[in-house]
Amino acid sequence: MDESIDDSHRRGLLSHGLSVIPANALGLDPMNRIYPFEEVSRFDLSTDVLVAGFGGAGASAALEARRAGAEVVVLERASDGGGSTMMSACEMYLGGSGGTRLQRDLGFSDSTRNFFDYLMACFGHHADEARVRVFAEGAAEHFDWAEGLGVKYKRGFFPGRDVVALTGDSLQYTGNEKAYPFSERCTPVPRGHLPADSGHKGGVTLMTTLMKRVEEAGADIRCDARMVGLIQDADGRVHGGVVRIGEDELFIEALRGVVLCMGGFIMNEAMTRRHIPHVESFCTRHGNPYDLGDGILMGVAAGGHAIHMGEAFISIAHYPPESLTFGIFVNDKGQRFVNEDAYLARIGHYASVQPGGRIFMFIDDAHFARPRYVLNTEIVGTGDTVTEVEREAGLPDGALQSTVALYNEHAAHGSDPLFHKAPQWLTPLDQPPYALVSYELDKIVPAAFTLGGLDTLPTGEVVTPDQKAIPGLYAAGRTAAGIPRTSKGYASGMSVADATFFGRLAGKSAANRGRETA
Amino acid sequence: MDESIDDSHRRGLLSHGLSVIPANALGLDPMNRIYPFEEVSRFDLSTDVLVAGFGGAGASAALEARRAGAEVVVLERASDGGGSTMMSACEMYLGGSGGTRLQRDLGFSDSTRNFFDYLMACFGHHADEARVRVFAEGAAEHFDWAEGLGVKYKRGFFPGRDVVALTGDSLQYTGNEKAYPFSERCTPVPRGHLPADSGHKGGVTLMTTLMKRVEEAGADIRCDARMVGLIQDADGRVHGGVVRIGEDELFIEALRGVVLCMGGFIMNEAMTRRHIPHVESFCTRHGNPYDLGDGILMGVAAGGHAIHMGEAFISIAHYPPESLTFGIFVNDKGQRFVNEDAYLARIGHYASVQPGGRIFMFIDDAHFARPRYVLNTEIVGTGDTVTEVEREAGLPDGALQSTVALYNEHAAHGSDPLFHKAPQWLTPLDQPPYALVSYELDKIVPAAFTLGGLDTLPTGEVVTPDQKAIPGLYAAGRTAAGIPRTSKGYASGMSVADATFFGRLAGKSAANRGRETA
Repeated sequence: MDESIDDSHRRGLLSHGLSVIPANALGLDPMNRIYPFEEVSRFDLSTDVLVAGFGGAGASAALEARRAGAEVVVLERASDGGGSTMMSACEMYLGGSGGTRLQRDLGFSDSTRNFFDYLMACFGHHADEARVRVFAEGAAEHFDWAEGLGVKYKRGFFPGRDVVALTGDSLQYTGNEKAYPFSERCTPVPRGHLPADSGHKGGVTLMTTLMKRVEEAGADIRCDARMVGLIQDADGRVHGGVVRIGEDELFIEALRGVVLCMGGFIMNEAMTRRHIPHVESFCTRHGNPYDLGDGILMGVAAGGHAIHMGEAFISIAHYPPESLTFGIFVNDKGQRFVNEDAYLARIGHYASVQPGGRIFMFIDDAHFARPRYVLNTEIVGTGDTVTEVEREAGLPDGALQSTVALYNEHAAHGSDPLFHKAPQWLTPLDQPPYALVSYELDKIVPAAFTLGGLDTLPTGEVVTPDQKAIPGLYAAGRTAAGIPRTSKGYASGMSVADATFFGRLAGKSAANRGRETA
Repeated sequence: MDESIDDSHRRGLLSHGLSVIPANALGLDPMNRIYPFEEVSRFDLSTDVLVAGFGGAGASAALEARRAGAEVVVLERASDGGGSTMMSACEMYLGGSGGTRLQRDLGFSDSTRNFFDYLMACFGHHADEARVRVFAEGAAEHFDWAEGLGVKYKRGFFPGRDVVALTGDSLQYTGNEKAYPFSERCTPVPRGHLPADSGHKGGVTLMTTLMKRVEEAGADIRCDARMVGLIQDADGRVHGGVVRIGEDELFIEALRGVVLCMGGFIMNEAMTRRHIPHVESFCTRHGNPYDLGDGILMGVAAGGHAIHMGEAFISIAHYPPESLTFGIFVNDKGQRFVNEDAYLARIGHYASVQPGGRIFMFIDDAHFARPRYVLNTEIVGTGDTVTEVEREAGLPDGALQSTVALYNEHAAHGSDPLFHKAPQWLTPLDQPPYALVSYELDKIVPAAFTLGGLDTLPTGEVVTPDQKAIPGLYAAGRTAAGIPRTSKGYASGMSVADATFFGRLAGKSAANRGRETA
């Protein structure tokens, strides 16, 4: 790899004396452009694998490509790496192979089949079966990889219902494993793997370590470096990228492949308005400022296919405290719409499809509490009878009363024939005073991020709408459509597990493609 | 325009001696390819405006381009024109400007503001306000255009609740105008404009006439001619298309513009699986066999942006007979989920988001009937009491009983505080025997078609993800994202009105672009 860049060639595009289209010839945002390989007379830099983005996916891709013996250049638009993974708790949703080392050490077993079945149940018609299979088979090894980086995982199981264990323990339930209908189809196993003693800061723990390993492995990491275009030949093969560093534009050759790990598009208002307008209307955008969708658009410009673009993760974390799971969610018709022991993103999904988005929690004095994470709930009705609450909240006469009566009648027998909340959370709500707490979406503004992205093979190869791989082009993380494809089946840890697992695969594939064809 | 094609040049791509990439170099479906203008040494045919697709949108575009003085070539992949518009009743959803000529002749007035407000209410966050405005302002004139073609519209108003008037009358309510919440926001006006005496065959009536006018206007119409690629230069400007006729590939130059009117993608299984997997899982694909999405993919390959790709029209036409509107729809928890006087696509939308898709209609003997259009409903419970019905159908104990009790209590006072069904359809369901009729989605397999497509300006110009027009490229009909963008707000007649209205605008824009820049 040419480690030193000839500064006389850093003066930007025009200094090349090429007939390359000025990026803004069409008035296009330059990041969407494809530069014709045939018109590139020389490169500023040449490497085997060019990784765009130094978040969870990009760092994993870079490390594995280096380990496979490839020269690697990593580009990061921000002043330092980390991406949205760094901002997360860095929980990883892993299992299978009889159990990860952590699951087994804590006495849990988890067959690959059980893990596969669970993921397929989660994503149903949206699931990419080939991808789910590769993930279910490889996830346990992926835990060893993460631990092998030097990330510590504490052999402690947190049994509570919380978004992230704050006890320092590393294993917990983070999805719908124990909730209907999943509990009936698969054996519930905890699969949330959290860096030790990190709580919400697991992203810092994991990414700091991972980025250090990438550096040690000898990748050439360049921050404040924005990928603005792909270099593609007339046959469709991708040969590299154009990078803007300061005022300069550099042409970087990637002999084996380019891996796009540039995040999702939740921060791109023009895109969210056209792909998730309904979610955009009430959500808080959750991600890093560069989740602008440029990786997705660049991949599409190269012939890729952006899929599931209307899907988004939507969070309604009414727990902890877990006592709130005893409450019931109702819409503005007083009807329940979900089993309240479901994971926060499943609740978010069903809340988002209620007409008008006006949702509430009804709860009695025995279980009332303020949710820890939803800070802007408001009590819209109280009373010693359900009738009083219903009236104060302005719900239709009799609607809440009939819902609560039916719920209590069954709960007294430990059953919930409508939504099948687990018996552990069932008890009649009959201890006055009662409260109705508003979780109206435009008031609580739940966090959301996008799940749609480039269609890829499990190896990370970006494919066209008719499933042909574009030679030399890979994607991972939320630039690609990954394992989680609808909020309905999401679990904490799926994004980071998916980004790092398939980031690694993409990095390896890119590194090996060069070899196979050399 | 070169009317005669030199046959020696019809031998296909290779006969050109060009370095143009063979369409399948990448293993790509050739329809996704972009051919570099710079490498085209000569064209087989030259015209001003090239229209791909001879359905409602394409025929309208062709006619208006001819009327604006442009030479026009129209390509149709099938052996004759008509497209999906031909298969429809050809109702057009029109209003505004104080009323169309038909509305006014029948005593209805409809302000542009009222029409605009209604459409904006229908599509909410999904609405493209600029497009809605242009449509609301121009729709009344569009009726005159249609009538001016020679299509007869009978001065008769059909007051019933039916999908298509079978009385021969030409005006009827076809959407949610009289249903909540629309009835509270806008003055209800009938806007379904149906060719006279045509019933379900209005598409034949209108398209036969329209296609004849296109022919008379002197457009060069070529059937069995498949558009396989766009010819685009390095600056992004589109110069024409590559067309496959038999074994030959012809290069057609379009001096002013190419208009893509190639339908939606409901017949493309690879695309529906990735964009509307949930809908695909239960629907009947509704469209013509060439609704394969190739126009959308071609536009994206040229730099366009496919938007709202996850949205689809879903039809649950439980009426007529209209007496069924007195019944109540419930999900498998016995809960209502929609006002039953809503339009069939709104009912389809809310049915599709019920967990499990198991929906039913509860009805009493006074209102029972078999729906005319949903042929495969099944009675899953009957009885002289609601309890008996509930048990026979296997619904949760008490769930249907409590729903019916609450409904009847309010209906006795002419109100429906939960879903606001209009008083005209409200009466207690208390005449035994009762029935529960299954409308389970995977059993009734409702018709669906796609609503997503290329992002365009109201003029039809295809735009990039950052809203820059691609010079020379236009789209209309379901190749573009149009007025209707979610099933929730759809009304019969919106697709044909949108396709023909915006097809005309695209044809005019393309014809005039040449002039402006000449």
